[in-house]
Amino acid sequence: MKTVNIAILGLGTVGGGTYQILQMNRELIEKRTGRTFEVTKVLELRKDRALELGLREDQICSDIEQIVCAEDVDIVVEALGGIDMPTDFMLKAMEHGKSVVTPNKAAVAANYDKLKAAAEKNGVSFRFEASVGGGIPALTAIQEALAGNEFTEVMGIVNGTTNYILTKMTDLGLKYEDVLKDAQEKGFAEKDPTADVEGIDVANKLSILMTLCFDKYVKPTEIPREGITKITMEDIEAARAKGCKIKLIASAKKVGDDVEYSVGPKLIPNEHPLAGVSNEFNAIYVTGNAVDELMFYGKGAGALPTGSAVVGDIIAIGKTL
Amino acid sequence: MKTVNIAILGLGTVGGGTYQILQMNRELIEKRTGRTFEVTKVLELRKDRALELGLREDQICSDIEQIVCAEDVDIVVEALGGIDMPTDFMLKAMEHGKSVVTPNKAAVAANYDKLKAAAEKNGVSFRFEASVGGGIPALTAIQEALAGNEFTEVMGIVNGTTNYILTKMTDLGLKYEDVLKDAQEKGFAEKDPTADVEGIDVANKLSILMTLCFDKYVKPTEIPREGITKITMEDIEAARAKGCKIKLIASAKKVGDDVEYSVGPKLIPNEHPLAGVSNEFNAIYVTGNAVDELMFYGKGAGALPTGSAVVGDIIAIGKTL
Repeated sequence: MKTVNIAILGLGTVGGGTYQILQMNRELIEKRTGRTFEVTKVLELRKDRALELGLREDQICSDIEQIVCAEDVDIVVEALGGIDMPTDFMLKAMEHGKSVVTPNKAAVAANYDKLKAAAEKNGVSFRFEASVGGGIPALTAIQEALAGNEFTEVMGIVNGTTNYILTKMTDLGLKYEDVLKDAQEKGFAEKDPTADVEGIDVANKLSILMTLCFDKYVKPTEIPREGITKITMEDIEAARAKGCKIKLIASAKKVGDDVEYSVGPKLIPNEHPLAGVSNEFNAIYVTGNAVDELMFYGKGAGALPTGSAVVGDIIAIGKTL
Repeated sequence: MKTVNIAILGLGTVGGGTYQILQMNRELIEKRTGRTFEVTKVLELRKDRALELGLREDQICSDIEQIVCAEDVDIVVEALGGIDMPTDFMLKAMEHGKSVVTPNKAAVAANYDKLKAAAEKNGVSFRFEASVGGGIPALTAIQEALAGNEFTEVMGIVNGTTNYILTKMTDLGLKYEDVLKDAQEKGFAEKDPTADVEGIDVANKLSILMTLCFDKYVKPTEIPREGITKITMEDIEAARAKGCKIKLIASAKKVGDDVEYSVGPKLIPNEHPLAGVSNEFNAIYVTGNAVDELMFYGKGAGALPTGSAVVGDIIAIGKTL
């Protein structure tokens, strides 16, 4: 059986989840693909974390060169987070002939052109299914199974933290500040929640969705953006009176040859499929000129759901090796 | 640019929709794939229908041999409907080295093993995304992007006619017989609705879903099955009182090493994502041990939505040629 060798950069939530899935479902994946997927190296400064997950000491690297120059690495999974350093690492990996998989929406959104060009130049694969909607396999569907469509609109609830906050405000009549505090205590929201509640994370994801749906790259910083911090109970009640829910929506729409796009709270009618997407769940809603309306729904975060998308990308590449 | 040559067997709803999409989105598909997709031949006894769609007289065949023996056919799209004859045609096409795409759930469900084996033996592709859920790209996702998961459950609302009837009964308080009559007048239900309302069509689709999710092939005729013909207003009201909706559900679940499966009306709690799937819409809901809960929602029928799935399969095969 052919062996596909993998290096994981960063054993945080997603990197760790990816490693776990490859162990947990090893036999099943071998049976389905006719290939063995081995994690041969990891880049991780917390040796304890790596050992705890079951890696051997000799697999733990602390220098990216040890990974990009290694012969026993076919695919590099970048799961470090951040923008500049991980982008450099991904480019370096591709220059050394390694394919790259990443869940890092900030890096993909900021440097899509550069990363895509490097993959083409070096004849390697570059996949990032996990960067939007966590485990939801929408990006692959948009690029592959739906490739016969001209897309006319894409809308998404693509941030679990803000969707959780808005759901609790709507269902329990609680104030923004109180729900945020509760979410922080439960670990659903970061101590510094800015990237989530101000829509920065959502803008990164919309940038990626627009690139794939409309072949139009817009820097996330250039996307008009409003967060949820100013939403009051009065707003929620006013929406309810109109038969709507307030959701933080990433939206892009073809208007003639142009694309209109924005991130912000929107009134979604209760009958719309996106209105039923509650708590930490995410959904991506696309309209194509052949398929019409389509929605993908699932968990947008978490070690195993997001790891599922990374492993899907690893398998897709592995099958071509 | 490489040309991929296609023959379409049957220019009914789906065959015609497939042809339309390949014309309508020709440039876009060429740009995305670097390939030209040409319909070189059709098998269609209604010459008028073929000419009306824009085909030339010399492209219209009335004998399968003209297609399977043709050199200018790489992919055969079987969209005739029925079981035995289309299965024979697909096997014949594969024996002649052609890849096959079909939306024909009855033929795939009845003869999955034979068709799959023929594809492997002849080194060709066999794809059937459109056979379950029309335009919804769930089958490809289950086999590819989600290949890192052990699936534990799959549930589906996979018949638009019955979902339309149940929705109208629930929302408008109408009786089964009255809604069925109305649906037949509007063309949403067949004159003989047996295959839909008795769950036969749903059993075909569940057989396909189980094969892909659990690697377990069960003949559709061996799936325990109940339709919706006996559902009364009292049932609907009793469900409502419990905070539920009645939906015709295809369901299969891992229980230990075994799989439990059935087709029949089920109470779905209003909070469950499947409860919001109304009218003619379909949804497939899967649970994997990594990705957790996932739902795919969209149009389960219609020329262009179902054609979208066929074209997705054509493109996937075309890229490998």
